[in-house]
Amino acid sequence: SIDEQRLWDSLMAMAEIGPSPNGGSHRLALTDEDAAGRHLLIEWGQALGLALRVDRVGNMFLRRAGKRDDLDPIGVGSHLDTQPKGGRFDGVLGVLAGLEALRTLDDHGVVTQRPLELVVWTNEEGSRFAPAMVASGTYAGVFSVDSTLARRDRDGVSLGEALTATGFNGEMAVGEPRLAGFLELHIEQGPVLEENHEAIGVVTGVQGMRWFDVTLRGQSSHAGPTPMRYRRDALAAAARCIDRLQAHALADPSGDTKVTCGTLEIDAASRNVVPGEVRLSLDLRHIDEGELDALEARFEEELAAAGEAFGVEAKSERIWASPVVSFDAGCVDAVEGAAKARGMAYRRMLSGAGHDAVYVSRVAPTAMVFIPCRDGISHNEVEYSSPEQCALGAQVLCDALVELANR
Amino acid sequence: SIDEQRLWDSLMAMAEIGPSPNGGSHRLALTDEDAAGRHLLIEWGQALGLALRVDRVGNMFLRRAGKRDDLDPIGVGSHLDTQPKGGRFDGVLGVLAGLEALRTLDDHGVVTQRPLELVVWTNEEGSRFAPAMVASGTYAGVFSVDSTLARRDRDGVSLGEALTATGFNGEMAVGEPRLAGFLELHIEQGPVLEENHEAIGVVTGVQGMRWFDVTLRGQSSHAGPTPMRYRRDALAAAARCIDRLQAHALADPSGDTKVTCGTLEIDAASRNVVPGEVRLSLDLRHIDEGELDALEARFEEELAAAGEAFGVEAKSERIWASPVVSFDAGCVDAVEGAAKARGMAYRRMLSGAGHDAVYVSRVAPTAMVFIPCRDGISHNEVEYSSPEQCALGAQVLCDALVELANR
Ligand SMILES: NC(=O)NCCC(=O)O
Ligand SMILES: NC(=O)NCCC(=O)O
Repeated sequence: SIDEQRLWDSLMAMAEIGPSPNGGSHRLALTDEDAAGRHLLIEWGQALGLALRVDRVGNMFLRRAGKRDDLDPIGVGSHLDTQPKGGRFDGVLGVLAGLEALRTLDDHGVVTQRPLELVVWTNEEGSRFAPAMVASGTYAGVFSVDSTLARRDRDGVSLGEALTATGFNGEMAVGEPRLAGFLELHIEQGPVLEENHEAIGVVTGVQGMRWFDVTLRGQSSHAGPTPMRYRRDALAAAARCIDRLQAHALADPSGDTKVTCGTLEIDAASRNVVPGEVRLSLDLRHIDEGELDALEARFEEELAAAGEAFGVEAKSERIWASPVVSFDAGCVDAVEGAAKARGMAYRRMLSGAGHDAVYVSRVAPTAMVFIPCRDGISHNEVEYSSPEQCALGAQVLCDALVELANR
Repeated sequence: SIDEQRLWDSLMAMAEIGPSPNGGSHRLALTDEDAAGRHLLIEWGQALGLALRVDRVGNMFLRRAGKRDDLDPIGVGSHLDTQPKGGRFDGVLGVLAGLEALRTLDDHGVVTQRPLELVVWTNEEGSRFAPAMVASGTYAGVFSVDSTLARRDRDGVSLGEALTATGFNGEMAVGEPRLAGFLELHIEQGPVLEENHEAIGVVTGVQGMRWFDVTLRGQSSHAGPTPMRYRRDALAAAARCIDRLQAHALADPSGDTKVTCGTLEIDAASRNVVPGEVRLSLDLRHIDEGELDALEARFEEELAAAGEAFGVEAKSERIWASPVVSFDAGCVDAVEGAAKARGMAYRRMLSGAGHDAVYVSRVAPTAMVFIPCRDGISHNEVEYSSPEQCALGAQVLCDALVELANR
């Protein structure tokens, strides 16, 4: 069985790279910090004799040979990039638990039938480059390599430029190697497992999500002499739209409607200037694709109404849509079987967050393992799962991985 | 009478300093652009033989001798700094119309009894350093010199450092020279004169204004798995508060209640992160001090209610209060008399914007002249008054100035 302390030590060592003031991590995709995190992992992989390959969008594959190297490998992993003020577990746990699984196989001299690939996907968070999971999406053929390399961050740096700057512009074709299966361990990022005192979430699928860029154009004018009824206040329109969408989502008794405005910027903001232009992002989610359509329609209505009310021109662009996903029954069973065999309390559940597994599931049988995290909080420096919780998840991951690789 | 073309040429020459893409100006206080604008004025002043003095907060005084140099001078002027995307007239017109008045006196060999001082006040806009009109306020003894020098911009640069960097850290004591009167010409920045086809506003006073810094602290978390009812969304609380205050102000049939949120920033913003902390500024105005108290109370209520509704800790700090002002009856009469004598259509009116005249009026008899501006728009690159409108205002300013200086 896996080594709880060794896994924890690895997690804490990785957290020292790009440490953030309140105990979190700051490793935005393809920054120097992200590169340093990748190099640490490569070092650890080399100690295990893993063979590194990097594809053209920076996805890293660390290969452990199997008995039958002619067979497609089973992949295990997640991402090392974080939010601007992210935690120590989101993504990192999935990579380091994969590493811990391979270390454990080495400890016991186990060689699986299929080779194994420890995978690090580039720019999962979507915080530096939109959308999220862009490099696993490219691996799965959802985005073209060229479009991915051309995506730009807020400072105008392209993903391709950032790859070159950090040295992770690999040569392997994107889509290589083909995987016969993929498993990803992740913190739940919600409160369900903790509230129900369950150690493991057997993830059967992922809710649908859509991202929008919204621009509101009114007219800037002076905060003092401009009469209220003459104003075309872009921020007032934005506030109205956000408030109405919040109310709409909060009124859903099922709790399945989710609305988040995560970024909002006022052009040439000044205390005594009525905001003339506002840009914001919107994130809409639902577990049902039809309901997600209805939510999008509702958003467009509220946006138009708010624009109308304040004399503001409102435009939205859907920049990303990730449909509702169902994972592979065989892989889900492998995870459930592992949790059951170890006598752990578990539940089958959907994921509210997107993960690289979402895109990988399009080209390989895939499933995920969740563990609880404190108060369901993530994308926050206080994000926490205990050493024991991490170890239980890594154990299920390891068992399911061996099961898939020997099937 | 004054020279319309010469005034217009001066305005357009000044607008070439810190030009902004859409025909406006970008000369934030005490930047290189602001300094270049000041130097151009100094050059023009030297050509007229005006004597320059600069006080310790960078206010500039360009003196024209009178017949009785033992008498306190009459001041005329405004400011040269602009909003981030400001126009060509706000402030600049008041300075350059003062210059045009002095040029006209020279043309006609007129020497007034009292000396005249062409004044440029530092950092009127309040956009780089809060609050607005801080240097005329210091001149009037409302703010101490030390506190003014210590005020910092968003990048942490103090006003004192910016003075030194631009060379406008003068030696004259702040409060010098004492003025026997002060006149300021300004664009109205509202729609009243234009709508009523009037050339001149005789400004009898200025509405009260208060500035607040607001901080909303909730908890950042993941936009996907975090249930709506678990969230502590700082932006949702901000949007609620803004929307309620907008509705409150719009519902005032008198139109005298004014509410503006001009800046709003999300800490560590990311598309898929529920905002954990938001900082925003609020500008409240009213022509009645009691009503302004009531408006402030309403704001505090709405802020508390929004915080409560979204589980967000809300704090506000009042960082500036400029009470309702009434100008000096004698100076107002001088302006009104000048407009009447020239047969111009005018109205007595209040100013919705703060101006340096607000603070100067505490220590010297003061009044203001307004001219119309297109669509009432200012604090915007499209801000516009015609050459003729500017000239009519400058004429009234010149006539009233001579009248006060010979009284
Ligand atoms: N796990 C995670 O934080 N993924 C980012 C993509 C999303 O927004 O759901
Ligand atoms: N005139 C002007 O724009 N003044 C700035 C101070 C204010 O906000 O009213």
